[in-house]
Amino acid sequence: MEDKLGSKAVVNIGLIGYGYWGPNLLRNFAELPGVRTVAVADLRPAQLESVSRRYPSIRTTTHFEDLIADESIEAIVVATPVATHFEFGMAALKAGKHLWLEKPMTETSHQAEKLVEEAEKRSLTLFVDHTFIYTGAVRKMGELIKSGDLGKILYYDSTRVNLGLFQRDVNVIADLAVHDFAILDYLLDEHPIAVSASGINHFPGTPENLAYITLFYDSGAIGHTNVSWLAPVKVRKVLVGGSKRMITYDDLEPSEKVRVYDKGISFTDDPKVIHEMRVGYRTGDMWAPKLDGSEALRVAVEHFVECIAKGEPPITDGRLGLRIVEVIEAATSSMRGRGETVRIRRHKSDEPLTYASR
Amino acid sequence: MEDKLGSKAVVNIGLIGYGYWGPNLLRNFAELPGVRTVAVADLRPAQLESVSRRYPSIRTTTHFEDLIADESIEAIVVATPVATHFEFGMAALKAGKHLWLEKPMTETSHQAEKLVEEAEKRSLTLFVDHTFIYTGAVRKMGELIKSGDLGKILYYDSTRVNLGLFQRDVNVIADLAVHDFAILDYLLDEHPIAVSASGINHFPGTPENLAYITLFYDSGAIGHTNVSWLAPVKVRKVLVGGSKRMITYDDLEPSEKVRVYDKGISFTDDPKVIHEMRVGYRTGDMWAPKLDGSEALRVAVEHFVECIAKGEPPITDGRLGLRIVEVIEAATSSMRGRGETVRIRRHKSDEPLTYASR
Amino acid sequence: MEDKLGSKAVVNIGLIGYGYWGPNLLRNFAELPGVRTVAVADLRPAQLESVSRRYPSIRTTTHFEDLIADESIEAIVVATPVATHFEFGMAALKAGKHLWLEKPMTETSHQAEKLVEEAEKRSLTLFVDHTFIYTGAVRKMGELIKSGDLGKILYYDSTRVNLGLFQRDVNVIADLAVHDFAILDYLLDEHPIAVSASGINHFPGTPENLAYITLFYDSGAIGHTNVSWLAPVKVRKVLVGGSKRMITYDDLEPSEKVRVYDKGISFTDDPKVIHEMRVGYRTGDMWAPKLDGSEALRVAVEHFVECIAKGEPPITDGRLGLRIVEVIEAATSSMRGRGETVRIRRHKSDEPLTYASR
Amino acid sequence: MEDKLGSKAVVNIGLIGYGYWGPNLLRNFAELPGVRTVAVADLRPAQLESVSRRYPSIRTTTHFEDLIADESIEAIVVATPVATHFEFGMAALKAGKHLWLEKPMTETSHQAEKLVEEAEKRSLTLFVDHTFIYTGAVRKMGELIKSGDLGKILYYDSTRVNLGLFQRDVNVIADLAVHDFAILDYLLDEHPIAVSASGINHFPGTPENLAYITLFYDSGAIGHTNVSWLAPVKVRKVLVGGSKRMITYDDLEPSEKVRVYDKGISFTDDPKVIHEMRVGYRTGDMWAPKLDGSEALRVAVEHFVECIAKGEPPITDGRLGLRIVEVIEAATSSMRGRGETVRIRRHKSDEPLTYASR
Repeated sequence: MEDKLGSKAVVNIGLIGYGYWGPNLLRNFAELPGVRTVAVADLRPAQLESVSRRYPSIRTTTHFEDLIADESIEAIVVATPVATHFEFGMAALKAGKHLWLEKPMTETSHQAEKLVEEAEKRSLTLFVDHTFIYTGAVRKMGELIKSGDLGKILYYDSTRVNLGLFQRDVNVIADLAVHDFAILDYLLDEHPIAVSASGINHFPGTPENLAYITLFYDSGAIGHTNVSWLAPVKVRKVLVGGSKRMITYDDLEPSEKVRVYDKGISFTDDPKVIHEMRVGYRTGDMWAPKLDGSEALRVAVEHFVECIAKGEPPITDGRLGLRIVEVIEAATSSMRGRGETVRIRRHKSDEPLTYASR
Repeated sequence: MEDKLGSKAVVNIGLIGYGYWGPNLLRNFAELPGVRTVAVADLRPAQLESVSRRYPSIRTTTHFEDLIADESIEAIVVATPVATHFEFGMAALKAGKHLWLEKPMTETSHQAEKLVEEAEKRSLTLFVDHTFIYTGAVRKMGELIKSGDLGKILYYDSTRVNLGLFQRDVNVIADLAVHDFAILDYLLDEHPIAVSASGINHFPGTPENLAYITLFYDSGAIGHTNVSWLAPVKVRKVLVGGSKRMITYDDLEPSEKVRVYDKGISFTDDPKVIHEMRVGYRTGDMWAPKLDGSEALRVAVEHFVECIAKGEPPITDGRLGLRIVEVIEAATSSMRGRGETVRIRRHKSDEPLTYASR
Repeated sequence: MEDKLGSKAVVNIGLIGYGYWGPNLLRNFAELPGVRTVAVADLRPAQLESVSRRYPSIRTTTHFEDLIADESIEAIVVATPVATHFEFGMAALKAGKHLWLEKPMTETSHQAEKLVEEAEKRSLTLFVDHTFIYTGAVRKMGELIKSGDLGKILYYDSTRVNLGLFQRDVNVIADLAVHDFAILDYLLDEHPIAVSASGINHFPGTPENLAYITLFYDSGAIGHTNVSWLAPVKVRKVLVGGSKRMITYDDLEPSEKVRVYDKGISFTDDPKVIHEMRVGYRTGDMWAPKLDGSEALRVAVEHFVECIAKGEPPITDGRLGLRIVEVIEAATSSMRGRGETVRIRRHKSDEPLTYASR
Repeated sequence: MEDKLGSKAVVNIGLIGYGYWGPNLLRNFAELPGVRTVAVADLRPAQLESVSRRYPSIRTTTHFEDLIADESIEAIVVATPVATHFEFGMAALKAGKHLWLEKPMTETSHQAEKLVEEAEKRSLTLFVDHTFIYTGAVRKMGELIKSGDLGKILYYDSTRVNLGLFQRDVNVIADLAVHDFAILDYLLDEHPIAVSASGINHFPGTPENLAYITLFYDSGAIGHTNVSWLAPVKVRKVLVGGSKRMITYDDLEPSEKVRVYDKGISFTDDPKVIHEMRVGYRTGDMWAPKLDGSEALRVAVEHFVECIAKGEPPITDGRLGLRIVEVIEAATSSMRGRGETVRIRRHKSDEPLTYASR
């Protein structure tokens, strides 16, 4: 196919779902050179009218199958309720199209596995939109951790609460804690081995609206996230403790979101001081590195297109999406058992995903 | 006994332990009319010298038994490491003296029970110094909750973290979460029925320095506290969610520590809208009531003396102290089981404390 | 004229200038029922292309005269550099069109006077876009002051600083302090009688980038604003002191922007205590009223259209715009005299604007 | 004289005035090795009783002359209302004693000059207690400026407001702005040449309770301070703008009081771009250096004693104190002239203080 610039580098996109996040996706795909959004599908005619008013050249349809059948479309973006991700995603992959799925990837880890297998079999790009990983703040934290500046990571502690929006189809773990699970997957070089969670739905018949989740790691690191739709104030704060330095990350600060504290504990196991306090404190400067202020979704969209072009797996590929779904499943299971520890499947990056035991 | 004012209303006090908290206790007892601190015991001569320099008229000794044996002393204040609370406290009660114990009350709930029984048998005042309950902020929150202004209490969520001081003899639950357990005991008209906790000691051989504890209540309310000695910043923030209004309580704010938000959820179970979102939001004014700025320890000390004079049980009596020790025990046990739910003994205020089953 | 709804209520608008603020104006006019933006003029073809992409039905032109000459256009919106406001505005009025001018209204008070006279003579609506007056925060402050809740207003103190954007054509007084002059004009029922200002341009050949302005009032009230383009952090904070209560207004707070403090001074002139301190303090609750969260520009646009329809003067009419230009002139003059007091013309709402003395 | 350590290094001190600041002075002098406070004078017997209770070995008197006449006393500390500083200070100097004066140094610059001359003539240490200069925050800011890290200093902008305490004997300039005048004298290597101030006393018969002061410097730097006793919230914030970097200093922050922003303006006077915007922005990291947390008064007291021992002039010597009094006088005069510029006497460090023209 050829674009108006006479180049063959343009990727034609079809978007399924034009709800809360759809306009952001469409705007970012529209502004990106090398991408052309060909068609949008949504069940609601009013939503499609809104597309047409803003983007008269984009075709609209209430049948997602029209996009699947359209041979000019090379990549499908799915931004519908999670219950439909597997159906739409699998249809797209089977039609040989690259796939962008909103988070969480699927309702079940079994569905996620099937999609990963299908995409890998067909060498298609499977991208899961864990947007936070593409923020300047999280990328800077990743750099700092990978450089060794923080030392050994001891804990990650997040508070992510606000008033509303209550979701109908997913609980607060899949809605909010999912961000921390993805950030942790990106920051640490290990995956959680077990989870203990507690939470509650204060309104019978609705999903859990408040939860506390602890992730355990082999190295002794511990992760925790406090998520709620029922808080009087909005909070988005993360602490990361390393053996050398510690970080605060406040996503609501207009600037200096990430601050690095030259603080820590000095510990002696000298037997001569065994009867005394063996823990000392060290405090020093604080430093807030300049962050890349690019819109995270823009970075993600560029990365998706580049991965399609180069045939490379995205940072947030299907395997990452699958691991996050597994953590959501385990955390939800633990929460319903009032904190009972639930083990999480171990992943190695090069192993096949199919297991006899499943 | 007679004081210099010719009144018999003076209570003679003996203080055991002059470490971190001792000077605050001594200053408050010294400034209170109607109390005379007669003697201070501590094993460290340097500490006793410090007492003598500031208060030349107070006797000092390295033998706590001197205070127990002193018939002029009517009340013993114990501010020593928790491992000694039972021994010193029981000796004081057996000598017929009223008793003030620093928090946590004892190492084990069994010890706490014995002290409660002894004090009740002898009709002596047994006071446990959960100072936070005597702050203007917590008392105001109690008023607001008891008045019904918040509606049904749905959750209590606390973050209580800082860098240091690592304790040698107690873990971070007994050091920091204890404050939330006491505040919850004061604010709610029910006691927790079970607990799930997770936590870690990052330095082998030291007590756990970071913990996350969830308390479950019969009513469906949920309590959570996040405590750490290993955070780069100091945080003391509590959210309380009610069905009508919600509270934030930030103990580090110089003013407006307690803020009441006229915010909440409106929920319909109308079957006609059963397929739609049934949860709405309500937002209104915020209001920060003026708080009593008195030093909490001063209020506690006055209350102790008044309870002795009137023969009435203190707000933070031995039974409250015992309940808190039981929660600490259950939380620590759950933490060591990686979140496994641990049930907590049910308490009714008028039942005897001795059980066949123990 | 008739719109597609068959009603004659639609106002046809022409917009001159599509730079920084133009897209916001166009979006708000586009979303408002009862208004139709017919044409946009700008000297820069690239800007006009941007209009056409978003709003294909709007005509574009590089000649503002096309809009003046268009008989279907009943109101002209001018969002160009201030040096052109008089020319464009006068042309619009002379063509019998209602007029919206961005702030500041004109370069000189003489120009502003001429526009006011022309509009009044022709009974045309002349609106000056002092948007801040249409925010929920400022309107709530106005209510509180007018209700007498604050008592007598003693002072208004504003800090309005940030890094950049350096303007080429106006100094920081006309760019930032103008907001405080407008807010003060709205909040107080008196106008300043004199001004003392100091300030500096740190880069020769550019307008002053930092200024401190004090406004004096007959009642003894005092107004102050601290404005800068050269601050490391962005600040938008106002204090308003009343004899009964005081307000803080922080425009950067996501919520609770306006806070009312039940604090004040109690003052005695009892001759018996004449030799002692005669000033006492009173502190009480703090209260943050819920604010209307509507976009201020949307409220302004609605008000403009309504004023045209009803033939009533806008809140921010030409006379208000003129008074603000006079304060800018006086403040700039005082600043260049290093704080020398400059008197400001007294205004009465019903007097004619033409003076023998000018 | 000999102290109990057998050394002759001890300085004997007499303190005149035991009011608000007296206890802090006495505590710091008492804790410092090498100093012995011999006697305290105050007109109020109740204050002297309070001294005796805490420090039984210190003599007390209601006659300051007793301290002047006491030959064992080598240094006098004056912490009385400012109206008495000259009388007490001159008496001390004439008796050959070193002198510590609370700020502001004297009521008039004429008095301050006389004290400086007397002290210089007799080679006595004359220390003025501008305590802020001895804080870790101000010393660190001084280091940063002197090292050139900030580039050329462009402005200093301070907000120093709170509710109360209204002073009877000095206005808010002498009470609060004095701190900024002293900090500026310390930070900059030039002195202000003129001042423009405005302010008001809202309660007739009391000193001005709110003022805005601008200081002008030869280099083009500008200083500003906003001081008030009538604000609903306490603020202590300073911005310092340099050509390379900028600082914020918030004295109420528990940590990271001083923050350095790698932000600034890049300016071109390239004639080729003369018609375009010539000012650009540069933003980078933020950095909060660790500060010395020592109590500032402790540092000041040590410095005073060291200056006596070595015969060196203190950082806050009489000449600095005099310069500050001159700025207070000029600012107060300008304020009463509604902002009229008042010139300030030029100082050179090595010139004599006596002028023909005065």
